Amino acid sequence: MKAVSIKQPGSAEELVIEDREKPVAREGELLVKVAASAINRTDILKRESNQLQPPYPILGVEMAGVVEENNSGNPGFAPGTRVASLVNNGSYAEYVTIPVERAIVLPDEFSFEEGTAIPEVFLTAYQTLYWLGELKEGETVLIHAGGSGVGTAAIQLAKVLTKATVITTAGSQEKLDFCKSLGADAAINYKTEDFSERVEEVTQGRGVDLILDFVGASYWEKNFRSIKVDGRWIVIGTLGGAVIKEMNLWELMGKRITLKGTLLTARSDEYKAELTADFVKDALPHFKNKKIHPIIDRVFPFEEVQEAHRYMESNKNIGKIILSLDK
Amino acid sequence: MKAVSIKQPGSAEELVIEDREKPVAREGELLVKVAASAINRTDILKRESNQLQPPYPILGVEMAGVVEENNSGNPGFAPGTRVASLVNNGSYAEYVTIPVERAIVLPDEFSFEEGTAIPEVFLTAYQTLYWLGELKEGETVLIHAGGSGVGTAAIQLAKVLTKATVITTAGSQEKLDFCKSLGADAAINYKTEDFSERVEEVTQGRGVDLILDFVGASYWEKNFRSIKVDGRWIVIGTLGGAVIKEMNLWELMGKRITLKGTLLTARSDEYKAELTADFVKDALPHFKNKKIHPIIDRVFPFEEVQEAHRYMESNKNIGKIILSLDK
Repeated sequence: MKAVSIKQPGSAEELVIEDREKPVAREGELLVKVAASAINRTDILKRESNQLQPPYPILGVEMAGVVEENNSGNPGFAPGTRVASLVNNGSYAEYVTIPVERAIVLPDEFSFEEGTAIPEVFLTAYQTLYWLGELKEGETVLIHAGGSGVGTAAIQLAKVLTKATVITTAGSQEKLDFCKSLGADAAINYKTEDFSERVEEVTQGRGVDLILDFVGASYWEKNFRSIKVDGRWIVIGTLGGAVIKEMNLWELMGKRITLKGTLLTARSDEYKAELTADFVKDALPHFKNKKIHPIIDRVFPFEEVQEAHRYMESNKNIGKIILSLDK
Repeated sequence: MKAVSIKQPGSAEELVIEDREKPVAREGELLVKVAASAINRTDILKRESNQLQPPYPILGVEMAGVVEENNSGNPGFAPGTRVASLVNNGSYAEYVTIPVERAIVLPDEFSFEEGTAIPEVFLTAYQTLYWLGELKEGETVLIHAGGSGVGTAAIQLAKVLTKATVITTAGSQEKLDFCKSLGADAAINYKTEDFSERVEEVTQGRGVDLILDFVGASYWEKNFRSIKVDGRWIVIGTLGGAVIKEMNLWELMGKRITLKGTLLTARSDEYKAELTADFVKDALPHFKNKKIHPIIDRVFPFEEVQEAHRYMESNKNIGKIILSLDK
């Protein structure tokens, strides 16, 4: 089968389409013929990683496609069923195998492109807002990088599932407008404004209950100023650097802050299965009734995977970048 | 009534016994004649605080004594009832008023000295281990400053309530031996050993589920090395400095650590009432059956409050330093 790997760790030039062996579904697994995959920042980190040794892995962590073989005994996933899922061993490929507990049956209304736009960003946003962030009805949440894949997912979930007040940051008017169209109550241009001052204004000095932080070091002080006493702060990315130069523990203790670090990809199969089940129950109905939408920026054919990676690196996308095997 | 305040912010020399007005129990409150109070590190911080303006406050945050007037309507606290409690407005005094929800009825077996040794350290340890740290049956907890008031309380609670594996640090053989006698499974001398290496050994490389951190900056890196993936780390003191010079967020994310800052004294009356109720239900029975003991190091008469403060500052105590109004 065709699959995308790398010639060696490095830039998008190193991506290569190779022939790989078609995987075999073990007990409890599905074999899925992939129709679409999606580009994630973690794929770029992997592509560049000097830790990798040959034979290099297949890239990609999510896909949508059609079940070709069901080796799970679960009658809900007969051959022909359309599914979307996180994938452990590479999704930029014609075939993948996945544990059945992790498969989401794709609603009929959804294309495969829309399907593959769901797992990584919506599961990450759902996990961060609810499992880790414990967001409750009517609270206020600050979502950084509102125009990103996880940002656009988190804005929608927070509004639809919990009627939260959503404050978001982004770096262009186009992204700010888009965040507003998704329901954000306030959208702040971090390039022209001090977001902590705007947060103070919007929350009338109270601060936010929860911060979704994809940015890290460059927003550190301002996040401390923006958070409420007893607030929760979840670190899931370091777009603005990973090294905090100085932290005074009395600020952490004085505001009684809960600071959590997380990464979705390293979680156990069991964790991902439970998270998927919770998400399907709580959030998927709102996709069916069109209150929540997978956000697609652009679809690239499989052969243009280098282009797709470069496009993500240019940081211009709003929502997901898709790799289609149908085209 | 007699009460201890300060002449001006500064050393123990500034402590002074003055005449103050006897407080009046408002609705929902008890008036208590104090028999014993206890010295806490927060009293020393307050004594030194340049933020204070005259009239200077009465020091002290906990006491044990006898109800003199019950203005709460709760028949469980009739005049003559022996109680112990956290106090908001100073406890180094002949009388205090307290919200009735916060009063712990003192078991008959307990002296007033033992009674005042309970509220601050046991409520802090209970809150940190269970409300914040979510310690579960059979987990492993690292308790720093094992010989301190909160340390000795936490070791006992963790062993008796949750059969946890307890690893503790202290700075003298006497303190280490005492921690062991309270049930600690491992006691590490932080002056002669790298505690993170011993933790690795004791946990067979797995690390601890929970850290109770009274130390802060000077242990920061070693705590990061000692904690398990998905571990919880509660910062409740900064004996080793408050300013972290550098923190890499990937360490937080890679180990998916939950870091919480807390201070008990600033909590709301409602919070303290709920915490007290939980503690009375879960832990007090074990005091009655002698499985858990309030730990008293030394009792000073009320008039020797300066001596008592200097003794705490010398850092030699194991367990509580008490101020007695009976002697």
